[in-house]
Amino acid sequence: MLPFDGEKLRGLMDEAGLDLVLASTRHNVRYLTGGYVYHFNERCQRAGSSQYMAMVGVPRKVEDAFYVGAGMEKGGLGVLPMWIDRRELTGGNVASTTTAAGAAAKATLNGGGARVGVEMPFLPAQAFQALQSALPGAALVDATDLLHELRAIKTAAELERLSCVSDKVAEAIQSGFRSGRHGITTRELASNVERSMGERGLAFLWAFTNAGPGYVRAPSDIQWQRGRMLHLDCGGEDGDYLADICRMGALGEPTTIGRDLTEECLAIQATVRGKMRAGMSFGEVQAASDAALSASAHAGIGRIVAHGIGMVSHEQPMINRPEQAARRLAVGHVLSIETEFHHPEAGHVKIEDTVAIGRDGARGMGDIGRELQVVPA
Amino acid sequence: MLPFDGEKLRGLMDEAGLDLVLASTRHNVRYLTGGYVYHFNERCQRAGSSQYMAMVGVPRKVEDAFYVGAGMEKGGLGVLPMWIDRRELTGGNVASTTTAAGAAAKATLNGGGARVGVEMPFLPAQAFQALQSALPGAALVDATDLLHELRAIKTAAELERLSCVSDKVAEAIQSGFRSGRHGITTRELASNVERSMGERGLAFLWAFTNAGPGYVRAPSDIQWQRGRMLHLDCGGEDGDYLADICRMGALGEPTTIGRDLTEECLAIQATVRGKMRAGMSFGEVQAASDAALSASAHAGIGRIVAHGIGMVSHEQPMINRPEQAARRLAVGHVLSIETEFHHPEAGHVKIEDTVAIGRDGARGMGDIGRELQVVPA
Repeated sequence: MLPFDGEKLRGLMDEAGLDLVLASTRHNVRYLTGGYVYHFNERCQRAGSSQYMAMVGVPRKVEDAFYVGAGMEKGGLGVLPMWIDRRELTGGNVASTTTAAGAAAKATLNGGGARVGVEMPFLPAQAFQALQSALPGAALVDATDLLHELRAIKTAAELERLSCVSDKVAEAIQSGFRSGRHGITTRELASNVERSMGERGLAFLWAFTNAGPGYVRAPSDIQWQRGRMLHLDCGGEDGDYLADICRMGALGEPTTIGRDLTEECLAIQATVRGKMRAGMSFGEVQAASDAALSASAHAGIGRIVAHGIGMVSHEQPMINRPEQAARRLAVGHVLSIETEFHHPEAGHVKIEDTVAIGRDGARGMGDIGRELQVVPA
Repeated sequence: MLPFDGEKLRGLMDEAGLDLVLASTRHNVRYLTGGYVYHFNERCQRAGSSQYMAMVGVPRKVEDAFYVGAGMEKGGLGVLPMWIDRRELTGGNVASTTTAAGAAAKATLNGGGARVGVEMPFLPAQAFQALQSALPGAALVDATDLLHELRAIKTAAELERLSCVSDKVAEAIQSGFRSGRHGITTRELASNVERSMGERGLAFLWAFTNAGPGYVRAPSDIQWQRGRMLHLDCGGEDGDYLADICRMGALGEPTTIGRDLTEECLAIQATVRGKMRAGMSFGEVQAASDAALSASAHAGIGRIVAHGIGMVSHEQPMINRPEQAARRLAVGHVLSIETEFHHPEAGHVKIEDTVAIGRDGARGMGDIGRELQVVPA
């Protein structure tokens, strides 16, 4: 059984005039194989004078897909089966994987003039050149957005995964706030969040740590001080499914403006989340977001953004691309919504949530500790 | 002050006829900037329809180097200074970074016919094409090995870092053994090692987990059972400096063959480590390794490999490249040495150590728990 919507992929390929998709990024290899990534190189690709690279080739006849990986994968593939039976395990680095993928592509395409979709912002130049030589007459075109489209509607299993990752990231943020004390540096706070994600089985991705006043978000020697606001805007992932959550804390009694701006963020988020539902156009989502922000007394220092999230941050639905304004939210879309204010005293006040579009509107994921966290000073 | 050997880089560029090096991998950006990588994208590059990419350009006049990054890096760069003053923060994704890097390269090179070194197995095809357009007449050639050469001799600070990472990986492996019990799966063991690395502030990279008999090393449902051998061959990193260590354990009383093969690994490693010293040719290292293995009663099922390790596994010194046999070990080289046996009953028995070449020979790094770890069954 195919782990993705084969009919949809065929339709997208027809529309783009593609005969073959050759995916090489970790997240798309994982998606197309139905969860498989070679464990050795999942977190570290560089090796020797090259890097590990696997490829999945999917022709129009989706069932004829092939996988190219390293010889060392043989043992693991025996105990971790995947649906693709045609496996070329003579690859591994950029040169050998491209040789094997080029040969498999040639056998699949039988003849020149083919159009092959690759991931141009990711595929190494060395691989591109070798594929051009192996497939003379073929056009190699970018398929990054096509693969975004394929992944846009999340299955129940994917929603469960994203919900779980979002909860864990939100919990790790709470654990970061709880580690707060007068004089702790934002570098220490970021490292505490990182450790906490590790304890929860997540791969840590990032921690933005703004301790107001000032707008520096990079973990640094800047200290969180009594009476000051802190935002923790953190990302983590599990098997390429990622969460991006921002929460606010105050060390001791918050200032009035700090509390007010946090509450404004929450009110704006509530308004937008309450309006989102399947069938609403991206343009309407953008308009509803802009309207909610405009109604705020601090609109002049505010910003609101909504964007898709799943295996990639800022994937479909791409709400803020004007050319996609007529497209519509659908059941299974997952979005990140972020509202933020830049204030000279409070610093960078921000709340970011994840929601999944269901039959009854937007359902929150990782809705833990959304209210202002007051940490004993 | 330059964080790397500028004279050496100039010499390597002269030798390769390069006018400019344009590095784009995380580890080489970190090395050339003297430790800086944008924290947001350190662990996650993919975003929207592209990926985050920074570039460091270093011309022959090394002091005129430039850095290209994202606008969002401005705040962080204020608190995390780096030696490169020429910073173009109009980049971020592949397209925008390449546009800025192409313009900066053009200004630096004044004129066509230049040779520009890039990392061909890593540089995205989209970036390669854009650089070709921005620099008509320039030749873009691979500089991956040149950058390996530049990094080959480790400074005292780098040795300290590698030693610390090696210790932590070895400790995490010990913690993995201690979590052992009859029936634990290798997947659980790998996950325990991962968590333990996180607690030590390392980024987990991989865990090979062979529970004999059989040779499957991928974490799976295979169980570690009473009386059986286990190898934990694990990688972790801190700021792109990585360690790769393998240790052996037995659950309860080991079999005679399990104990014997582990002791053979240790004896062979001791022989090779004892012979290594500055001035020895790579060919002599290979010959000494082969001789030590040949002397073993189990040579027929054994294998020994030595390779450089630092920011990349299998970097210089590349002992097993025949064409480099005449090159010589030097003070500041760091090597991984791995001895292993495949035995039908014991499974895959392996010890892997890291050593740094000093004035008095090879000094071990991460030499923790090298003897067979007998875990109460």
